[in-house]
Amino acid sequence: MKTNDQDKELSRREFIQQTAAIGAGIMFASSSDLFAETKQGRATNMNIKSKGYAARDTSGTLTPWEFERRPVGDNDILIDVKYASICHSDIHQMKGHWGPQQYPQVPGHEMVGVVAAIGKKVTKFKVGDRAGVGCMVDSCLGCESCKDEEEQYCPKTVFTYGYPEKSSPTGISQGGYSTNIVVRDHFAVHIPDKISFPEAAPLLCAGITTYSPLMKADLKKGIKVGVAGIGGLGHMALKLAVSKGAEVYAFTTSPGKVKDILAFGAKEAIVVDNISKLAPYKGKLDYMICTIPYQYDVAVYTSVVKHYGTYTQVGMPEKFELTLNNLGLSISRVNFNASLIGGMKETQDVVNYCADHNVHPQIQIIKAEQVNEAWENVVNKKARYRYVIDAATF
Amino acid sequence: MKTNDQDKELSRREFIQQTAAIGAGIMFASSSDLFAETKQGRATNMNIKSKGYAARDTSGTLTPWEFERRPVGDNDILIDVKYASICHSDIHQMKGHWGPQQYPQVPGHEMVGVVAAIGKKVTKFKVGDRAGVGCMVDSCLGCESCKDEEEQYCPKTVFTYGYPEKSSPTGISQGGYSTNIVVRDHFAVHIPDKISFPEAAPLLCAGITTYSPLMKADLKKGIKVGVAGIGGLGHMALKLAVSKGAEVYAFTTSPGKVKDILAFGAKEAIVVDNISKLAPYKGKLDYMICTIPYQYDVAVYTSVVKHYGTYTQVGMPEKFELTLNNLGLSISRVNFNASLIGGMKETQDVVNYCADHNVHPQIQIIKAEQVNEAWENVVNKKARYRYVIDAATF
Repeated sequence: MKTNDQDKELSRREFIQQTAAIGAGIMFASSSDLFAETKQGRATNMNIKSKGYAARDTSGTLTPWEFERRPVGDNDILIDVKYASICHSDIHQMKGHWGPQQYPQVPGHEMVGVVAAIGKKVTKFKVGDRAGVGCMVDSCLGCESCKDEEEQYCPKTVFTYGYPEKSSPTGISQGGYSTNIVVRDHFAVHIPDKISFPEAAPLLCAGITTYSPLMKADLKKGIKVGVAGIGGLGHMALKLAVSKGAEVYAFTTSPGKVKDILAFGAKEAIVVDNISKLAPYKGKLDYMICTIPYQYDVAVYTSVVKHYGTYTQVGMPEKFELTLNNLGLSISRVNFNASLIGGMKETQDVVNYCADHNVHPQIQIIKAEQVNEAWENVVNKKARYRYVIDAATF
Repeated sequence: MKTNDQDKELSRREFIQQTAAIGAGIMFASSSDLFAETKQGRATNMNIKSKGYAARDTSGTLTPWEFERRPVGDNDILIDVKYASICHSDIHQMKGHWGPQQYPQVPGHEMVGVVAAIGKKVTKFKVGDRAGVGCMVDSCLGCESCKDEEEQYCPKTVFTYGYPEKSSPTGISQGGYSTNIVVRDHFAVHIPDKISFPEAAPLLCAGITTYSPLMKADLKKGIKVGVAGIGGLGHMALKLAVSKGAEVYAFTTSPGKVKDILAFGAKEAIVVDNISKLAPYKGKLDYMICTIPYQYDVAVYTSVVKHYGTYTQVGMPEKFELTLNNLGLSISRVNFNASLIGGMKETQDVVNYCADHNVHPQIQIIKAEQVNEAWENVVNKKARYRYVIDAATF
């Protein structure tokens, strides 16, 4: 973590000058109030007060929490969050499905808002810019993965919540179900004016996570693309693939989603209430992306892809573990791979692409107090298709 | 199953003519005696007596067994088995690791010998030819997979032992740990004179199973190939890859194999007594083939392959199931696939290739009575590297 070294080295004199300039109201001001007078982006070395919803244990219940974020470092920006959306991953992680967690922990890795302050070395953003943050808030920026613009695979990546982060007053990164976030500028993207904030939020994880592997699949007009699991990620995969000219086959376990799926532009909606429903599609598809975030019959699903085709798993199950039948996989002759979100350049790409091509997630805006109910709905496959929390209600 | 329809339709008159011509000794003669006088390959519609070693239950213990094989059909050949080798799959299947079995069952899917009789429609072989049989004895020959010369993926493939086979007097196919086999000609390959019988036997499974995916890996001189698990299959993968000019990194859990591995031409032998031993090889290899036939840490092994490289699993674990860490797989960015043996054309290719390029398995010839001890050694990783049973001792 290098982001705040310079701040830490600020002399006491500088510190006093800064705080004096901002005034006595600082300790209680919201971040936007705080920086209303610092449009030039002068960073403060005071912790930033934040308010959000946090998990306190593995119960999966969130409650309001006031906490602090680190000061805005030279390379940081402070974003006043306007909307934050709910990803199934939030639930998995808070419940400890991916390993023990430190609590309180604020989930949320899809957030958008307005830049309220910038560090003195920041040129990528200016105060007032529309900005979004996804699943990462830091990485080394020097390793092969970072150089290849795949920061998500850097060994030092700090994911947006629950990761050890020395600079954070809570010791871990804290996510987007909150009024603001301090983040290294590299890990924020611009949100174009032509897409609304609530519709942009889900692009930061659901959008990029499906866009990245779809772009590697070299989508051509008429290519047959399968999407398994039509939730937050799946419906974005569907819309993105349709927008690229693909013929999309959507596999869902929810009969109630069929109408939506066809409205989103899928060629076919297949209700997999029994695994045998996949049989007629054996070897039919050029490519498949699977968003199912729990254990399922991998080999049977891969069998819908043509021989030597590719199948990408983006849904992350409990403990991240998937059990597959190796004989079945050999029979399908399919390349199975997994993909984790996407790099920052590609994240900007997907946001721009969706803004330019009117590829918008199907959202339901909720208040913070509805978040626990919304989580239940996500688990029970009742979300249609992404819950977006109005951050003004935190 | 169409192979014997014509035989079944032989009139009683023809039946009497045939048996009369062969004489009264038929019922007790060995297959080679039986056909010593029928060099023209006139098929008989009498069952063929055979003698071998069979499993009686899931104990993994084999005992001598006399049984019958089907008559030689129009498209069949009868092979007097000279050598049959031991594959870990034999043990898995007999012990019921891949599902319940019918017993008695004769294992063995690597066998070579001399053609003793041919059906009247057979042109591929003549009596006296050297021939080998691998993992399959029949398929539909009409489906896409069969047309693509990947008969192993035909839905109607009859594998060499334990598969329902109406034509077999025992109701299932019976394998190569025996004095002879009757097999449809398409599923036998020619064994060139320049390779010995015992050295040819292991090519029928260990050879083709590693050759087929290695050929798809487009081996070029200097390509870095990993081989994980240096047993019967792994040592063949190693030798084949070396022979193709690859720089081979062999991963083994047996320190005692290091010397052999280097002698086989590997660039490095890595003893993985702890999974951390893989760390220095992270992202180093162009391609990896894994022969480990039990559950292991798939994602960590895949991490030694460069990003977007390919990793092929050929070892088949219990229940065929492999559990992998999907997050780990995403971080390695590797295409994971599985491969099952290879088609008949490719099986002939590997036999010819090994004969032409002196790529010989490292074998230990044993007598039939040593088979149970040999199986123990295979399970305990003591085989060096393929046991070959002298069929004269059955």
